[in-house]
Amino acid sequence: MNKIEHIGIAVNSITDTGSIYEKLLDTTVYKIEDVLTEGVKTAFLKSGPNKIELLQATTEDSPIAKFIAKKGEGIHHIAFAVDDIETEMARLKAEGFILLNDAPKPGADNKLVCFVHPKSAAGVLVELCQEQQ
Amino acid sequence: MNKIEHIGIAVNSITDTGSIYEKLLDTTVYKIEDVLTEGVKTAFLKSGPNKIELLQATTEDSPIAKFIAKKGEGIHHIAFAVDDIETEMARLKAEGFILLNDAPKPGADNKLVCFVHPKSAAGVLVELCQEQQ
Repeated sequence: MNKIEHIGIAVNSITDTGSIYEKLLDTTVYKIEDVLTEGVKTAFLKSGPNKIELLQATTEDSPIAKFIAKKGEGIHHIAFAVDDIETEMARLKAEGFILLNDAPKPGADNKLVCFVHPKSAAGVLVELCQEQQ
Repeated sequence: MNKIEHIGIAVNSITDTGSIYEKLLDTTVYKIEDVLTEGVKTAFLKSGPNKIELLQATTEDSPIAKFIAKKGEGIHHIAFAVDDIETEMARLKAEGFILLNDAPKPGADNKLVCFVHPKSAAGVLVELCQEQQ
């Protein structure tokens, strides 16, 4: 995998936490995007080659709403950039990792994504993401 | 801040999780290091410009032992690379962030480090780290 593409952080408000992370990283939120299929609104900040993705639930049954109800605000997932998501999915499946989707699906920020079950990776929800052309 | 230097993951065994992350990232653990002052043993893997730091407690009162007892295995902190840690600490303090140490302290991997309280950053324990010359 090429790099950490982004860290996803579950927050109550991308506006409030967005301005905190703007101060923390000494930068600005450069993109806000709704991902309707996931029930989230996202805000992105850059740290060099990496991104921070703040995730706010927009529906009650959003995975982010459930995460915050259970654990509170905090790190939700690590996303790794890959060149060819289908090849990586096949490789990980063969290594015994549990994939949460059978085929790549559209994610935020013009990516094709696939999630790996936290049980496969010491409690960490891992996302693979490939830039779409 | 220049980039995500590493993600710290609290694990029960750096040996067991090390071999899982070697498969996940399709790479090898390139360094194992004891940090006696923190009561941890660490294993490092690379993902392009970024690192994954697996953290195993070596004492009962290690922060990692306490973290795992409370939350189980999972992401413990995000570390950002900075050029001048004292300047960044002063900047963040002036912005109202709560720093967990008054002066930079030696960390793993030849770094000077400082932690920012999770309450300052939406539940995320943030580490600043500067490469030592």
